[in-house]
Amino acid sequence: MDIYEESLKFHKKHKGKLEVTSKVPLDTRYDLSLAYTPGVAEACREIVRNPDAVWDVTSRGNMVAVITDGSAVLGLGDIGASASLPVMEGKCALFKKFANIDAFPLALKTRDIDVFVQTVKEISGSFGAVNLEDISAPRCFEIEERLKNELDIPVMHDDQHGTAVVVVAGIINAFKITGRSFETAKILVNGAGAAGVAIVKALFNFGAKDIIVADSQGIISKERTDLTPIKKKLLETTNVTNVSGSLADGIVGRDVFIGVSVGGALTADMVREMATHPIIFALANPIPEIMPDVAKEAGAKVVATGRSDFPNQVNNVLAYPGIFRGVLDVRAPQITDHMKRAATIALAEYVAVPSVDTVIPDVFDKGVVTAVAKAVRDASRE
Amino acid sequence: MDIYEESLKFHKKHKGKLEVTSKVPLDTRYDLSLAYTPGVAEACREIVRNPDAVWDVTSRGNMVAVITDGSAVLGLGDIGASASLPVMEGKCALFKKFANIDAFPLALKTRDIDVFVQTVKEISGSFGAVNLEDISAPRCFEIEERLKNELDIPVMHDDQHGTAVVVVAGIINAFKITGRSFETAKILVNGAGAAGVAIVKALFNFGAKDIIVADSQGIISKERTDLTPIKKKLLETTNVTNVSGSLADGIVGRDVFIGVSVGGALTADMVREMATHPIIFALANPIPEIMPDVAKEAGAKVVATGRSDFPNQVNNVLAYPGIFRGVLDVRAPQITDHMKRAATIALAEYVAVPSVDTVIPDVFDKGVVTAVAKAVRDASRE
Repeated sequence: MDIYEESLKFHKKHKGKLEVTSKVPLDTRYDLSLAYTPGVAEACREIVRNPDAVWDVTSRGNMVAVITDGSAVLGLGDIGASASLPVMEGKCALFKKFANIDAFPLALKTRDIDVFVQTVKEISGSFGAVNLEDISAPRCFEIEERLKNELDIPVMHDDQHGTAVVVVAGIINAFKITGRSFETAKILVNGAGAAGVAIVKALFNFGAKDIIVADSQGIISKERTDLTPIKKKLLETTNVTNVSGSLADGIVGRDVFIGVSVGGALTADMVREMATHPIIFALANPIPEIMPDVAKEAGAKVVATGRSDFPNQVNNVLAYPGIFRGVLDVRAPQITDHMKRAATIALAEYVAVPSVDTVIPDVFDKGVVTAVAKAVRDASRE
Repeated sequence: MDIYEESLKFHKKHKGKLEVTSKVPLDTRYDLSLAYTPGVAEACREIVRNPDAVWDVTSRGNMVAVITDGSAVLGLGDIGASASLPVMEGKCALFKKFANIDAFPLALKTRDIDVFVQTVKEISGSFGAVNLEDISAPRCFEIEERLKNELDIPVMHDDQHGTAVVVVAGIINAFKITGRSFETAKILVNGAGAAGVAIVKALFNFGAKDIIVADSQGIISKERTDLTPIKKKLLETTNVTNVSGSLADGIVGRDVFIGVSVGGALTADMVREMATHPIIFALANPIPEIMPDVAKEAGAKVVATGRSDFPNQVNNVLAYPGIFRGVLDVRAPQITDHMKRAATIALAEYVAVPSVDTVIPDVFDKGVVTAVAKAVRDASRE
């Protein structure tokens, strides 16, 4: 039986992965009178007297909503709300496991942005933060932006920013090892969806100057006549040397390839056209843009993928548990760029001595969440 | 420190009452590959292949949404969404404790029925059933009706029907003891809100013929010029003898008083005007319409209240855990009148030998949920 069959059997055996339990004893009448009637009325009255008390007397302060519409589920695409539930439950389970955060999955049926935003606003009172998940571009950008403006709790689309935090942390260390800097490195990002757009933004925040972006039709350049508004916007800051053509044209002389696209997109020949000792982050899931051994044979110095069976696994679980732990701890109203930057640096610095095969911390290193959460808390106070 | 102060301290100490935990191990890479990537993709694909698989591979089948807008929180009135959260969390904790049902609290901000209904529809995919809670009349009637029509999962407003199930179960046994029948008993229901309307409906379903309803302005009669649509509708089937005036006028000669109104509404003098050996269900919370000892002194034969410090405690927890357990077990699409009737009879018959002080099972009797759930399951198959 392969892992997929095993997993299906596993899911059926357990009937899903989450349960909601009481944190308090409920065995005696007295227990009930404290937790429920009549005592609970006082907790309600306290919130009436002082609205902020909701953070002290309910579970809200440790509760994250993991919300999707199932339109861009990693590796599976648009499978819809119901079919995305197992992934959402898994995300919630990981929030609890890694950061002791209570997380509840909500898969909304609508594809209407207004309805989506309104629904999240309506239910937001039960939560301390919102993790948007697996929502396709470009809808995900507007949804996240509107919710950030309209909610009074932090909102983060993890596929954008969680990915960007981990990628840039790895890039920081890869630059260290290969003697590069953000200001001078020639970067190519392959993929202009949620992750690609966020990675580009984060790279610029760290001082990058020369980024080319490619999508499935080739390099995003002035020559293109088919660009969506998001991609036109990318053109305002990227491709300053006005390269055009295919990925093979754009990759020539580049120091860094970051792939958030499809398996097999990057060939050994293309790697050989890159600068010396290139950095390859091939993050397509489950098949990377290029296999690590092939990339290394073609001259790559630092290679990262999303897979757990190779070194340098780029996985969002290195970021979102610590980020959300941090914002919940200080009850921050937003997850700011400053906090994401702090999380990125904390993640990079967590690797005391980076090497070609350790530019990113290990997913199972229990200290990561603590370090990232602390960095986010500290950043929230600045 | 009284129970209210104790409870507030208790809520602050625990920071609310609920947590969301993983039902599955997540300690090793292998655990993660089963629960999350890459294995979880198969559970998603299974739902794509067969939509009903969502009931087998996710937690949905055991998950109830406890949803309110905070407009009618028992004993506190309209305190709004946020302040109602401690009560909702308590309800969820009790679902788990009594019936091993996972329950999540959602307190919606809107007072717009369309927005409320749409929001619940949007999030319904994460749940196997919906328990509406503490929503004021008359909005609660339309909301419940619309959601029952538009959702494909069971919906029940517990303040209406859970209350009615327990009350009528108690009435069945009180009739047994006092030699009465639904067909001949003269009944007065004091209160025409959610509970009152549902109790009247349930009494008629059991064959009642003569019910008078009173509200804070007196008997609902043809003479009234201030009746809302709901109360006009009540008039179609109640008050067949066309009594008018105050509660004191209507209570004369009545066999049964059911109070879902305010404390102190029923006096000893009024009880003395009732038929011999009257039945008094004084359910106002926390102060009943009349205290049991006062009622008994005035001649009442069977007295019930909502309080735990007197015999015959009428508490919805005798109904909703078993009802929802039953419908979740068989994945019923609705909670039908037939099922509610079955639950009512099961609850009444659970008291093997009713006496004046035991017309209702004890709240802590562990067999109640089992009996009610079984009755509901059996009813769903008929």
